[in-house]
Amino acid sequence: MGRVALLLFLFALTVELSLGISHEIHLLRPRLASGGHPASGLSCPSWRLAVETNNIINWDTVPQACESYVGHYMLGHQYRQDSRVVVYEAIAYAESLKLGGDGKDVWVFDIDETTLSNLPYYAENGFGAEVFNSTSFNEWVMKGKAPALPESLKLYNKLVSLGIKIVFLTGKGEDERNVTVANLKKVGYHTWEKLILRKSSDESTALVYKSNQRKKVEESGYKIVGNMGDQWSDILGTNRGNRTFKLPDPMYYIA
Amino acid sequence: MGRVALLLFLFALTVELSLGISHEIHLLRPRLASGGHPASGLSCPSWRLAVETNNIINWDTVPQACESYVGHYMLGHQYRQDSRVVVYEAIAYAESLKLGGDGKDVWVFDIDETTLSNLPYYAENGFGAEVFNSTSFNEWVMKGKAPALPESLKLYNKLVSLGIKIVFLTGKGEDERNVTVANLKKVGYHTWEKLILRKSSDESTALVYKSNQRKKVEESGYKIVGNMGDQWSDILGTNRGNRTFKLPDPMYYIA
Repeated sequence: MGRVALLLFLFALTVELSLGISHEIHLLRPRLASGGHPASGLSCPSWRLAVETNNIINWDTVPQACESYVGHYMLGHQYRQDSRVVVYEAIAYAESLKLGGDGKDVWVFDIDETTLSNLPYYAENGFGAEVFNSTSFNEWVMKGKAPALPESLKLYNKLVSLGIKIVFLTGKGEDERNVTVANLKKVGYHTWEKLILRKSSDESTALVYKSNQRKKVEESGYKIVGNMGDQWSDILGTNRGNRTFKLPDPMYYIA
Repeated sequence: MGRVALLLFLFALTVELSLGISHEIHLLRPRLASGGHPASGLSCPSWRLAVETNNIINWDTVPQACESYVGHYMLGHQYRQDSRVVVYEAIAYAESLKLGGDGKDVWVFDIDETTLSNLPYYAENGFGAEVFNSTSFNEWVMKGKAPALPESLKLYNKLVSLGIKIVFLTGKGEDERNVTVANLKKVGYHTWEKLILRKSSDESTALVYKSNQRKKVEESGYKIVGNMGDQWSDILGTNRGNRTFKLPDPMYYIA
C-alpha cells in the first residue's frame, strides 16, 4: 500500500507540474496531519467530520495541519454540495408540512455562515486556523459586503413562497442592525417577520441566548416549523423547533 | 480536469491490476450518484455527511447509487480513522474528569456499531442498501461472532482503568441476553455495571426507550459522565449524560 500510494502521488505530481493545473483537483484528497493538532496519524477529513457531528467541541482554531485542507474544502465543490444536500432535505421537509394558514408558522435562520457568508473574510485570514481577530472581522462586517449562501437563499425563497415567515436569529449585536439589514436586502433576503440581534447586556452563551429568544418567539404565538444554523449552539438547547438543520462549518466553533 | 482524472484512473487501474491489490486504494474518491436517490448531481460524501449530522433522518436504506461508496468507506481506512478521532476525543475528555470516587460515575455505551460491529453481516448484505432482513440479521446475531470495534474497546479499557463503570444500553431484546453476554466477553468486554436490553413489551422508539432507561439509571444514583452511540437516537432525548459522542454509521437509521 505504501508503495502504491507513493507511486500515485508521484504520478499526480508529474501530471500537475506538466499541465500547470491548479490545486483544485486536490479537493477532499485526505491530507494527513504532520504535526500539532490533530494528533499525528489523524486525518483532517476525520477532524472535520468530528467537528460537524459535535464530537469535537469548544475548539479555538482549525488545527494548523488542516488549514490548507479546510481552505480547499471551503472554496471547492464539496462545501457547496454538502450545503446543497442539507437544503434539498429542508425544502422537501418544508413542502411536506401542513401549515396552520394563520401566518404563525416561522422558520428560524442563523445569519453568519447560514444566510450570509463570511468566506471572503476567512479566505484572507487562514480559514479559521488563525486566532480570531474581532477588530478586523468587525471591519469586514461593517462593509456589508457578505454574499448570500446560494443554497440558503434558495431555501429562503421557497419558504417565503410557501407562506412560512422568516425569523433571523443572530449573535450579531444590535449595533450592527443597520448594516445587517442592508446586507441581507442587497443579496436577496427582502422580507422577514423578525430580525433578532443580541443586546450588548446579554452575556449568556449562544446556546442559552438563542434558546431564550426562540422561547420568546413561541410565547408570542408563533410555531417554529424549522430551524437552520451552522453551529450546534443554533439547534440544540430548548425550543429548537419542529425540525433542525445543520449546515457545514469547519472554520469556527461557537458555544 | 477530465483528462487528468482519466489518466489517474488508468494509472491506478494499471497499478492495481499489476500488483493484484484490493480495491482499498479507491477509498473516499467521491462517487457521484447516477440515478435514484440521492438526486442526480448530489454526491455520496455529502449524503453521508448529512446522515452523520442528523440532517437526513428517517431513511430506510442507503441510496442504491451509494452502495459501493458506503462499502468502500466501511471497509477502508476512513471509517476507522473517523472512529479513532471520536474515541481520542472521548479518552481526552474522560481523563480530564474529576470523578466522584464513589463508584457511581458511569459511561453509557450502545452496542451495535458502537461496541460490537455487525460489519461482517452488512458486508454480505449490501452495506445497508438492501432492505433490512430481520430473519437473516437475527441469525447472524445468534452466532455471537460480532467483532469489537477496536477503537471503542480501547476507550472501554481506558474507562475501566479510570474507575468509570460501564452501562451497556441496547435495543437488542432480552431474548438475546445470553448470546450478547458471551459475544461481549469473547471480544474483550469483560466487566460492566449494567447490561440493559429491551423488553419485548416495550414498543417505544429507540430515542424514548433509551431516554427512559438512562433516567432510571440516574434515579438509582448513578451519574452519566459520558454516552456513546452510532445513532442520534442514542444521544439525543433526555438524561443524555454530561457529554455525548457519535460514532459514524452510514449503513442504517434507527429513530
